[in-house]
Amino acid sequence: MFIFSMISFSAISYQQIHPFDPLNPAEFILIKTILHNAYSTSNHNLAFHYIGLDEPDKSSILSWQQNPAANVPPPRRALVHARLDKQTLKIVVDLSNRSIASKRVYHGFGFPMSTLDQETVASVLPLSYGPFIESVRERGLNMSQVVCVAFTAGWFGEKVSERVVKVQCFYENGTINVFLRPLHGITIVVNLDDMKIVQYFDRIRVPVPKAEGTEYRPSELKPPFGPRLNGVGVASPNGPGFKMDGHKISWANWVFHVGFDARVGSIISLASIYDLEEQKYRRILYNGYVSELFVPYMDPTFEVYFKTFLDAGEYGLGQNAASLEPLNDCPANAVFIDAYFAGQDGSPVKISNALCIFEKHAGNIMWRHTETDLGDEVREVRPDVSLVIRMVSTLSNYDYILDWEFNPSGSINVRVGLTGILSTRAVPYSHIDQIKEDVYGSLVAENTIGTHHDHFLNYYLDLDVDGEANSFLKTNLVTKRVRDKISPRKSYWTVVKKTARTESEARVDHMAGFGSSEYVVINPNKETKVGNNIGYRLIPMSAARPLLSDDDYPQIRAAFTKYKMWVTPYNKSEKWAGGTFVDQSRGDDNLAVWTARNRKIENKDIVLWYTLGFHHVPSQEDFPVMPTLSSGFELRPTNFFERNPVLKVIRPQHVNWPNCTNHH
Amino acid sequence: MFIFSMISFSAISYQQIHPFDPLNPAEFILIKTILHNAYSTSNHNLAFHYIGLDEPDKSSILSWQQNPAANVPPPRRALVHARLDKQTLKIVVDLSNRSIASKRVYHGFGFPMSTLDQETVASVLPLSYGPFIESVRERGLNMSQVVCVAFTAGWFGEKVSERVVKVQCFYENGTINVFLRPLHGITIVVNLDDMKIVQYFDRIRVPVPKAEGTEYRPSELKPPFGPRLNGVGVASPNGPGFKMDGHKISWANWVFHVGFDARVGSIISLASIYDLEEQKYRRILYNGYVSELFVPYMDPTFEVYFKTFLDAGEYGLGQNAASLEPLNDCPANAVFIDAYFAGQDGSPVKISNALCIFEKHAGNIMWRHTETDLGDEVREVRPDVSLVIRMVSTLSNYDYILDWEFNPSGSINVRVGLTGILSTRAVPYSHIDQIKEDVYGSLVAENTIGTHHDHFLNYYLDLDVDGEANSFLKTNLVTKRVRDKISPRKSYWTVVKKTARTESEARVDHMAGFGSSEYVVINPNKETKVGNNIGYRLIPMSAARPLLSDDDYPQIRAAFTKYKMWVTPYNKSEKWAGGTFVDQSRGDDNLAVWTARNRKIENKDIVLWYTLGFHHVPSQEDFPVMPTLSSGFELRPTNFFERNPVLKVIRPQHVNWPNCTNHH
Repeated sequence: MFIFSMISFSAISYQQIHPFDPLNPAEFILIKTILHNAYSTSNHNLAFHYIGLDEPDKSSILSWQQNPAANVPPPRRALVHARLDKQTLKIVVDLSNRSIASKRVYHGFGFPMSTLDQETVASVLPLSYGPFIESVRERGLNMSQVVCVAFTAGWFGEKVSERVVKVQCFYENGTINVFLRPLHGITIVVNLDDMKIVQYFDRIRVPVPKAEGTEYRPSELKPPFGPRLNGVGVASPNGPGFKMDGHKISWANWVFHVGFDARVGSIISLASIYDLEEQKYRRILYNGYVSELFVPYMDPTFEVYFKTFLDAGEYGLGQNAASLEPLNDCPANAVFIDAYFAGQDGSPVKISNALCIFEKHAGNIMWRHTETDLGDEVREVRPDVSLVIRMVSTLSNYDYILDWEFNPSGSINVRVGLTGILSTRAVPYSHIDQIKEDVYGSLVAENTIGTHHDHFLNYYLDLDVDGEANSFLKTNLVTKRVRDKISPRKSYWTVVKKTARTESEARVDHMAGFGSSEYVVINPNKETKVGNNIGYRLIPMSAARPLLSDDDYPQIRAAFTKYKMWVTPYNKSEKWAGGTFVDQSRGDDNLAVWTARNRKIENKDIVLWYTLGFHHVPSQEDFPVMPTLSSGFELRPTNFFERNPVLKVIRPQHVNWPNCTNHH
Repeated sequence: MFIFSMISFSAISYQQIHPFDPLNPAEFILIKTILHNAYSTSNHNLAFHYIGLDEPDKSSILSWQQNPAANVPPPRRALVHARLDKQTLKIVVDLSNRSIASKRVYHGFGFPMSTLDQETVASVLPLSYGPFIESVRERGLNMSQVVCVAFTAGWFGEKVSERVVKVQCFYENGTINVFLRPLHGITIVVNLDDMKIVQYFDRIRVPVPKAEGTEYRPSELKPPFGPRLNGVGVASPNGPGFKMDGHKISWANWVFHVGFDARVGSIISLASIYDLEEQKYRRILYNGYVSELFVPYMDPTFEVYFKTFLDAGEYGLGQNAASLEPLNDCPANAVFIDAYFAGQDGSPVKISNALCIFEKHAGNIMWRHTETDLGDEVREVRPDVSLVIRMVSTLSNYDYILDWEFNPSGSINVRVGLTGILSTRAVPYSHIDQIKEDVYGSLVAENTIGTHHDHFLNYYLDLDVDGEANSFLKTNLVTKRVRDKISPRKSYWTVVKKTARTESEARVDHMAGFGSSEYVVINPNKETKVGNNIGYRLIPMSAARPLLSDDDYPQIRAAFTKYKMWVTPYNKSEKWAGGTFVDQSRGDDNLAVWTARNRKIENKDIVLWYTLGFHHVPSQEDFPVMPTLSSGFELRPTNFFERNPVLKVIRPQHVNWPNCTNHH
């Protein structure tokens, strides 16, 4: 990452910018300038915590989209969350006329997303703090090898919330895998507005786990190495099969826009698929992104209890996006996109290769059949190819691989991969037989407990199935007894379809209808020739229900985990399942609260919120770095098309490895 | 497929044959000869229904495996299921001394797997059957365009079972997709032992759905075609990364044997992984295969009620394996294996390219981390590669893609893909508004109902985690309240581990512990250095519970679907979850019955039986051929290794696309 030098405003030309394009460096600088003029920083303490595109009104986007060439795009606006003299500001900046469109002071609970700069400053405070230096000395450790990390503090019922983080420290000496070497027992509370240490705790003295075995850099590893994987060449000599026009992607029968936001990371917008029969593009997904990510740890002791992170709203999935490594994070045929976000001072910060896009040739079969009941055997097979949009978000120890995979069949497969480093606690034990207390995790190595935890991702899915007006349909499979002796068969199942009229009717419990229901977003105003409602259904790939008590503070704040699916009427202001200001939030502004109004959702522009969960009981394989654990879900057309949309697919031409010497 | 000419016995050399190698053509001919000598076919009516490898005693395999070069392999034997003069014979042939080791007449319920020859003969009988010819004429159809298919009849409480199939017919005229053109209403019952029609029903007259729109051959499709997929080259210039020694595969850190059986298809045996730390191979899976596949249709009317197929035991997943199409069924870098099974007369029948093996370069990430809390950013990423063993089994209309995927991390990912043609029922309706009765399915096209149905695959998984003596551990995540105010946190979850002592304790209901349990096969006699029991856990990817009533005949026969997981003590005779002779079986010999003995399973050689289910409510996209719908499960090491087993993986060398013109 590097800070930008000034860019002239003339760089901005709105005709070229897609309304969903992320804010560009010139725009960030313009916003910074406008706000610095409004709040002279000489006599104000101004910090930018979030600057993102203020989503244009849906109606204006849709009318513009009718003819982007001719129509004027909707006004370009930015949403700004800032701290000004210990107050939270919500500002909307109009970039078209370079003015402040609206501003208000937020007086509710919770604080904006943290800034990387403040996290950094807070994490170095202890290094010059007497009592901490003393604690380190008493432990016989070398101060120069200590690194500290600022963790959000959550909310646990306190009446007044100072804006604080809890800083904990780790020991580098001999490894870069510091998360496996905690100085367990020391917690430093830092007030971020005053940027000073307000509380200091040194409660427990337990040896720092040893560095040996924690490294993952090849240079630091001893032989033997292995296993050896075979080299392969993948290439598209005709170039990539997809076209990019700025952030607009077209591939096979798909068109969509890939955005980027400091808070939620990658955003898929205006995804439409070309219908060969109707000879036109048909709308599916207006907007889709990870709206929140809840990671509660299951150790209630003083040093860990507060670790109940809402990573998107507290840290930002986008501003923590990792630069992707060609050939390793994404295959040889990948194309990369850089991303930008605003630093604390408003200047644009670049993340190189924040996203990658590649055609996935996994050797899957799109469809096939061998017909053997006729005289001669007939066989037809179509190999599958898909297009993947990948972002990796690294939130201190954990790395989240976030894929959107588009299939020509109309399916959108969303995949999440968990890898990175466990959050651990130091203990004196080298064998589980020595453990007589509850250590709230697994002994994954000597003196090292991998703490039990969860990962709950909530996906915001504004499906517009062939238009905005949609309904949420529950298709329940119900056992029937066979009556009036039509056959010796005694039972069968049939489907009972129920359209959810209100938000409460739409909610899907993690257990309810499990293994015997389908969940479909339909367009009640359109049907196929034979009369089926056209729709898309969500097929989960796994399941984990929240296990915290409903009355526990983290669960109140992350109440969106309570249900697997929620449906709300589209509301521009309801973007993030955990609420707008989730740092130290109190659960008074989130998906659970919004839906309590129990609004009508039938034949309306609706949003589906899907919660994908993982429980994680760490195992030794997760040490010192965790092999990817994956899950996800599929959005699959269900009577959206008149028939198989890839029946007439044109097979990828097979490219032979050239018959000549190749150069490694 | 083609029938073999005689092969001299001298072709057989037992030192070269791995004890798990499938029977080879010479062996089939030897078996045929031995049995023809025993039962002179001049005065006997002898038909071979199943000839497979008689699995050697596990103890003898394991002792042989200690040093395959020096030790003599266990005696080579074949298990034969035959029909002799309307009786079922179970014969074991000893190939080493060319004799019959044992033979007995089976007097229980149920019949052996059907033979392709008998299915074919039965399916042509109607074509020369007066009443049927009359029915076809009355419908104004052209007899020369009629094709019939024999369907197993199931069991529905009748006291006496004749060995019958129910033949139903389809209309080809203008399409090869005959399953979409049923002559609905006509059912012909054929006695297979007498090979004659014993009952004839022409109950309903409904128009045959039109051919238009049913084709899937490009030659028969009209433009426009699309979408167009981009060509890509995939090649391993250094050759495939795996070695094949007959049916023995070694790749990366894996070694295993790939077998083939007429009934269950591909079999993975003796799978072990090389442990870099212990510098030795460690055992994981002794044997794994699809032990049964239950496909009940949900239409109770006379024409459909009996369609409750047990595809493995009734039809044979192996003898119905499709010949895989290079570049389309498997990618360019795949290697293919032919397979053989015994025809009805005992002669070997070849299936070319019955299996394929390929390295999968899907662009996944094996593990990664970006460390940002230190001065300089550190990034380590390892791309993933896996090895796939694929078989496609085509059971008349349906195609099952059955993959075993081995990952260097120690995970075995089992994947099932459903594609092919729907089983349909003809109706007079062209729009759902016309439908006033229950049609037991979805109107997927004019006059065509895609019938509701399920697919339940049961996987036999004889895990030997670092040895035979294993236990089945349920790890339940349980919510705890925080006591004695150690923090303001109110709750957390912890793990409660319970070892199943008996078969009844081991069973896992489809709903039980859903989303809050882990299921691990551990070795209670071995532990890691820090004391964790080494194990492997099964992670489901989806779920569908059976919806038939417990007292319904098909559910009694397929009772293995009742639970998601079962555990039994290893018993050589318990191979197939639906029982041995499942055609018209009565559920008196299957997994549910065996486990009713409630045997002890703790610290024993145990077998895990996993049921993977799909409910299928057809949609129009499934017409005329269904885009693949996938699910599966993961077997993942859980404290099997001391640490991440791919920490020191040697990255695949990237191979550049040669810098020279390539030839298409």
